[in-house]
Amino acid sequence: MRITALAGGVGGARFLRGLLHHLERTRADRTELTIIGNTGDDITLFGLRVCPDLDTLLYTLGGGVHETQGWGRADESHHVAEELAALGATPTWFSLGDKDFATHIYRSQLLGQGMPLSEVTRLLASRWGLPQRGVSLLPMTDTPVETHVVVTEGERTRAIHFQEWWVKHRAALPAERFVVAGLDRATPAPGVLDALRGADVVLLPPSNPVVSIGIILGVPGVRDALRGSRAPVVGVSPLVGGRPVRGHADVCLQTIGVDSTSAAVAGLYADFLDGWLVDESDQMAGTSRPLVSARPLLMSSVEAAADIAGAALDLGLSLASKDTPA
Amino acid sequence: MRITALAGGVGGARFLRGLLHHLERTRADRTELTIIGNTGDDITLFGLRVCPDLDTLLYTLGGGVHETQGWGRADESHHVAEELAALGATPTWFSLGDKDFATHIYRSQLLGQGMPLSEVTRLLASRWGLPQRGVSLLPMTDTPVETHVVVTEGERTRAIHFQEWWVKHRAALPAERFVVAGLDRATPAPGVLDALRGADVVLLPPSNPVVSIGIILGVPGVRDALRGSRAPVVGVSPLVGGRPVRGHADVCLQTIGVDSTSAAVAGLYADFLDGWLVDESDQMAGTSRPLVSARPLLMSSVEAAADIAGAALDLGLSLASKDTPA
Repeated sequence: MRITALAGGVGGARFLRGLLHHLERTRADRTELTIIGNTGDDITLFGLRVCPDLDTLLYTLGGGVHETQGWGRADESHHVAEELAALGATPTWFSLGDKDFATHIYRSQLLGQGMPLSEVTRLLASRWGLPQRGVSLLPMTDTPVETHVVVTEGERTRAIHFQEWWVKHRAALPAERFVVAGLDRATPAPGVLDALRGADVVLLPPSNPVVSIGIILGVPGVRDALRGSRAPVVGVSPLVGGRPVRGHADVCLQTIGVDSTSAAVAGLYADFLDGWLVDESDQMAGTSRPLVSARPLLMSSVEAAADIAGAALDLGLSLASKDTPA
Repeated sequence: MRITALAGGVGGARFLRGLLHHLERTRADRTELTIIGNTGDDITLFGLRVCPDLDTLLYTLGGGVHETQGWGRADESHHVAEELAALGATPTWFSLGDKDFATHIYRSQLLGQGMPLSEVTRLLASRWGLPQRGVSLLPMTDTPVETHVVVTEGERTRAIHFQEWWVKHRAALPAERFVVAGLDRATPAPGVLDALRGADVVLLPPSNPVVSIGIILGVPGVRDALRGSRAPVVGVSPLVGGRPVRGHADVCLQTIGVDSTSAAVAGLYADFLDGWLVDESDQMAGTSRPLVSARPLLMSSVEAAADIAGAALDLGLSLASKDTPA
């Protein structure tokens, strides 16, 4: 079975870790999971290229993530960052641990030698044992893209990097819109379109629909591939009771003028979504497409995430069997 | 009083720390010390520019050096290097601690933005409080230069980076010669020639005469400035009993066909050397120039180094007073 998933950071990573756990506990036949990771919130810090979503996916799936934090490495120290602060280097609002720095140094060195991000990511995935588990992690594109946020402070309007808005300002600065530099010229990384076209099921984890899934869908060719895919596309709502479990998806939705409801989020995917898993508290009016299913969506443990991922997968497989000619 | 010193790494740094201690304990009038540091053994590791001699000077004079090791930072951890090793990054033979990595990240970012090494070094020196003590640290040149060693293994001859020869092979691979890539096209960094021409005394610490002092002297214009300087030039022999106290100066001397004696080392500086401080065990036949003075040269403590530096300075001042017209 070939499963392809689009994913942002913490929510996507926890969902996909749950999916792997589900597949392993159900002793599913060899499954190939291809993850298309968001690179829209990548940022260059201290001259090093940082890919927050890819790294969260690597660390979470590889067993090296800081569990309570949801991102960064477990058992992490911050000696490099402390010394950079002593040197007066900025910014100081983005937390980078020492082991995490090694990832960025390694990535930046290889990128500097001309290696595409997709190849660098493949090497990083090997370090975390993902290929051995049938998992491929692809950046959505090898083209450098960066999400910026147009914010207004008083009478002043300016664009700041998404990470500055998200991490430094905790999404509290009023945002007018998101501008993704480079996205219109980006091309899908090698394997991305094939993974969408050749999948048996496509999953959208409960990642941010605007600045994670929405950015991946903005890579020219990706949305068309989903529209044309023979595989059922099943999404998991990022909202529980109309609010994001973590992060600021509600603020992002508001910025693009979309209600913070699971129904409205499904509307963002209307042109390709076949199944939609929502929380019990977010019952939607039944529709024929997407087929809506409700269950608890709080990923409070790996087991809970596995249950949710299993439900999403089952929903996809049930839709696939319907499509199969009798 | 303006003192200018050429310096390599550990030996030079300990001597100059002693000099500062001497100046402070003798309550010398405000003294300006300009250090011209060797950059010939600089190396790019993991995409980051590492300047071992400049860093040893910064850490030692700034009070942050690993004392017993003589280089690197005190209270250092190695999480970045361990993670890079886990990623399969090479080389693994050059030890870089976490705080040390911050220096290299900071330097590389600024160099990448087009800032000259001399300006980066000035910023690093500020972090270590050197300007407040009247100390300027200049790289010998802003031009990237790299010392390579032509080695023979069996029938195979190849050039390896100086650091690979020095650190990985501990200078045990037979060396045919040293080749300093970029040196013939290098220009002295801003302030270097002025510091030599305007000095009241020029000091050569007991640094490696071949791969430290010798490389600085190879920057076009530096040797001429020393030859033409009105200031006495006083050197301190790096040998005690005909052997280097640490490092592999004897092997380097052998490679360029020079005896491991204080007299032979003085011969390398014959065209500009006015005073020469040797160890008691290395008595030389008296010469009129350089004027030779003997005393214990083992820098076993900061106090001992201060005594040696004081003796070198006094020798220089005595030579300067002789030159003064009556």
